[in-house]
Amino acid sequence: MQALMMNSQLMISSILKHAERNFPESEIVSVTADNPRHRYTYKNFAKRSRQLANVLEYLGAKFGDRIGTLAWNDYRHLELYYAISGSGMVCHTINPKLFPEQIVYIIKHAQDKVLFVDLLVMPLIEALKSHLSDVSAIVVMTDKAHMPQTSLSNVHCYEELLAAQNDDFEWPEFDEHTASGMCYTSGTTGNPKGVVYSHRSTLLHALAGSLPDVTNASTKETCMPVVPMFHVNAWGIPYASVMVGSKLVMPGPKMADGETLQALIESEGVTYSSGVPTIWLALLDYLDKSKTTLSKLTRVTVGGAACPRSIIERFLTYGTTVVQGWGMTETSPLGTVFSLKRGMDNLSETEMVDLQCKQGRGVFGIEMRIVDENNQELPWDGVAFGALKVKGPWVSSAYYGMSQEPGSEGCPVDEHGWFDTGDVATIDPKGFMQITDRTKDVIKSGGEWVSSIEIENAAVSHPMIAEAAAIGRYHPKWTERPLLVAVLVEGASVSAGEIIEFLTKTLHKWSLPDDVVFVKELPHTATGKLNKLALRKTLEDYQFPNLA
Amino acid sequence: MQALMMNSQLMISSILKHAERNFPESEIVSVTADNPRHRYTYKNFAKRSRQLANVLEYLGAKFGDRIGTLAWNDYRHLELYYAISGSGMVCHTINPKLFPEQIVYIIKHAQDKVLFVDLLVMPLIEALKSHLSDVSAIVVMTDKAHMPQTSLSNVHCYEELLAAQNDDFEWPEFDEHTASGMCYTSGTTGNPKGVVYSHRSTLLHALAGSLPDVTNASTKETCMPVVPMFHVNAWGIPYASVMVGSKLVMPGPKMADGETLQALIESEGVTYSSGVPTIWLALLDYLDKSKTTLSKLTRVTVGGAACPRSIIERFLTYGTTVVQGWGMTETSPLGTVFSLKRGMDNLSETEMVDLQCKQGRGVFGIEMRIVDENNQELPWDGVAFGALKVKGPWVSSAYYGMSQEPGSEGCPVDEHGWFDTGDVATIDPKGFMQITDRTKDVIKSGGEWVSSIEIENAAVSHPMIAEAAAIGRYHPKWTERPLLVAVLVEGASVSAGEIIEFLTKTLHKWSLPDDVVFVKELPHTATGKLNKLALRKTLEDYQFPNLA
Repeated sequence: MQALMMNSQLMISSILKHAERNFPESEIVSVTADNPRHRYTYKNFAKRSRQLANVLEYLGAKFGDRIGTLAWNDYRHLELYYAISGSGMVCHTINPKLFPEQIVYIIKHAQDKVLFVDLLVMPLIEALKSHLSDVSAIVVMTDKAHMPQTSLSNVHCYEELLAAQNDDFEWPEFDEHTASGMCYTSGTTGNPKGVVYSHRSTLLHALAGSLPDVTNASTKETCMPVVPMFHVNAWGIPYASVMVGSKLVMPGPKMADGETLQALIESEGVTYSSGVPTIWLALLDYLDKSKTTLSKLTRVTVGGAACPRSIIERFLTYGTTVVQGWGMTETSPLGTVFSLKRGMDNLSETEMVDLQCKQGRGVFGIEMRIVDENNQELPWDGVAFGALKVKGPWVSSAYYGMSQEPGSEGCPVDEHGWFDTGDVATIDPKGFMQITDRTKDVIKSGGEWVSSIEIENAAVSHPMIAEAAAIGRYHPKWTERPLLVAVLVEGASVSAGEIIEFLTKTLHKWSLPDDVVFVKELPHTATGKLNKLALRKTLEDYQFPNLA
Repeated sequence: MQALMMNSQLMISSILKHAERNFPESEIVSVTADNPRHRYTYKNFAKRSRQLANVLEYLGAKFGDRIGTLAWNDYRHLELYYAISGSGMVCHTINPKLFPEQIVYIIKHAQDKVLFVDLLVMPLIEALKSHLSDVSAIVVMTDKAHMPQTSLSNVHCYEELLAAQNDDFEWPEFDEHTASGMCYTSGTTGNPKGVVYSHRSTLLHALAGSLPDVTNASTKETCMPVVPMFHVNAWGIPYASVMVGSKLVMPGPKMADGETLQALIESEGVTYSSGVPTIWLALLDYLDKSKTTLSKLTRVTVGGAACPRSIIERFLTYGTTVVQGWGMTETSPLGTVFSLKRGMDNLSETEMVDLQCKQGRGVFGIEMRIVDENNQELPWDGVAFGALKVKGPWVSSAYYGMSQEPGSEGCPVDEHGWFDTGDVATIDPKGFMQITDRTKDVIKSGGEWVSSIEIENAAVSHPMIAEAAAIGRYHPKWTERPLLVAVLVEGASVSAGEIIEFLTKTLHKWSLPDDVVFVKELPHTATGKLNKLALRKTLEDYQFPNLA
């Protein structure tokens, strides 16, 4: 039996319409390349977004076209989010800091029709121009006074285009499963892969992500997304904050600048912010050095990489709570977020920080499970760890232009409909999840899994070890056993036996490495992560000693 | 271009699955006819709901069948909500206090296959048995020890049925537009009309309704829905609270009993409750009389009828904030809810109470407009008032078995896709909506609308007027002009002219009644509301004096 409720489609434009109606006076403050402190209201934001929709039409962009952006967090980028998706086009955010050849690959693969680029990105565009012949127009996100010299013929000025259009525009209504946005994710191997969001997934993510036990988004908050808008849509904040009418503070290109962040937080009264660990280190270092404070900042969401305990503890001294979360480009990104449960009011500071070090608990809408090698579900006991799989309306079913058949090559969804995150995790009885490894790095020993990260964390606590990597190597009896590869601190000297003896204090017997290899340096990826693929290759012929 | 996100359907069963996984230890406390203080955990609640799904199958109920409930707020009713909808059947809640002939009409119209009835409702069922021949089974919601004597042949005991089933049950997945629940609404004329909710509408309502600026539902809350579960699904609390993992306290048949409510609030630590004004009067009177308190109750949501200012002020003395909301059976019900906006931190107590007296501001997901007689939109200036129309994914598109064609007879949606609420309202520049009248009661004078309620409120502030009604009567020049019909207090004597003179202090000239008619009593409906339809009929031949 069918229900008799309106079949209203979930549209991104409905966020803007609601915000304009209900919060016309809410402010958006931005740092841009052409203005260190731009401010306007939702009323103007909504008006300019409609003008921008007319600009897109003027530029010949059509329903379904991909419109690329190479830009930082500011009001013009926000206008693009709404004007592009609201018109039924696809807002394709691109990280300007990728390798130029990756940027070219991504623009070509998505077939971007128009590019909107920050003033600071124009030198890159000039350099890439021979590869951008399929792009019909390039719009520089600035005003006439700041327009750069250019050798490109199809370059426009954002503010000039906008000024030429009126704000008569009716946001169209269409199927909520229509693509609204696109974001490419680059793994350690192969080409970047395109994740395609829908209006439906974006709206559901904004609603579930704003709940009191998730990000607690409210009109009373002043929110500063420091996580870039090209990084999983700034974790959805541009949708959630506008939906609830928060004041928005956008740091533009200044996101790794502790001084700018502190000044914005204090002068604009930021209560809530979000970003990767690196930027918080920059802010905390600046605070320590300058003896300044964060008077109204109640909490920061940290994601993108595991948050070091020291960041949580340092923020605590400034009265700010770290809310760790976990997600991926493919999960929009909210999967888990830290928040206390009933009966946790009386935790000690250490217990609280212990909990904050985990990746948080499940957000409603995301089903989560950990499974063993045979895809059998493992218990939520905080001990068992297995491949983390998720399901839900804001989780990817496929990558752009690749197989949509669950279980097939190139499709990230298994034959039972679960998205394989590539992470290995434990989940404790209270539902708090902790990432323990990447599936490809976990060491499979005698049918048991050993966490490479657990060994590495234990090893670097040895005073003579500067950096460490644990990888699995062939063992005739156990298939694999852990091998520790260590870089010693300058001038140190220690034996493999002494290191292993040291590790017995923290590791289970089963997780102890069978041997330690000392190297001068470890291989890293372009983004600074340990490159275990390269390390395994280097040590391809390694054999454990004392094997009969 | 289609997005590449999982097409996960929004299912009511996903709430239960999430709750069981993430909040197995959360409690549900109930008052029932057979146990004054039953308590168990979500873990048991989920298990018993699966057993109950097997019971439904055992009773021969099929996907799409309507299953009626005549019951109060308790754990068994909650199990029914999830087991029925989760199985793809339709949970049809029926108000046991309706006139018996209405109950019979509703059961027959919905074609209920099985009825689940509270122990206290069994005498009614006995009385109606000759009309219930199409109902295949009647289940009494109690245990064996409390089973009543009955002359009916198809009567079962809830706990006995449950005990015979195991809890192996996989909640099916199906189209989210499938009917999940049904609730009949009775107007002043005609037969009750069936509103049919979907899994989708219910989930979206739960998400949007739980936002910080709406009901702020969280696992840390202890929530007591006093609004009945047969009254628009207890305003959605059985879904929202379980979704976020709140402790639930359910007052069973004791909802108008101030002493029981106070005892539950104090002993169970209720932080949040909801109900119609009448029950709060009962609670407040008990508090005043017994000198007891509400130590943890931070807020109560009030809806179903305009909340008198005195209730807001009296709750304030107990430290509890009244959150007024507006909605209808047809809007699931959330349309507007009170919550402060940015910049409202420094309101005086009077300003705050003034704001609480309005019906609140728009919830994201509901589009709202006020229109004049020509369906032209009116401004949000707090002065203009017009017919309130709404739109959104949890608003009715039609009534069960009636026309689904917008704009046609019997369909509540106009030809532009808006649901006509039948209310007349103002909306102020901050977005706070205030109901000023019902469309059918508003007085249409010379193209302007005059609020009958405004005149009545002004009139009853006269010390000699006990009760008053304002209706529109024919006027040759203005089409209609207001006529005040007043009941004087015992022994009072006053002229029409004196009353009108008195009203000039508060009413605009245009809203002043042209005459006053004194009567001994005013007609009322069965539920105690002024029956203006009858009053207009009685005064059909009335003519204003001094018309040339």
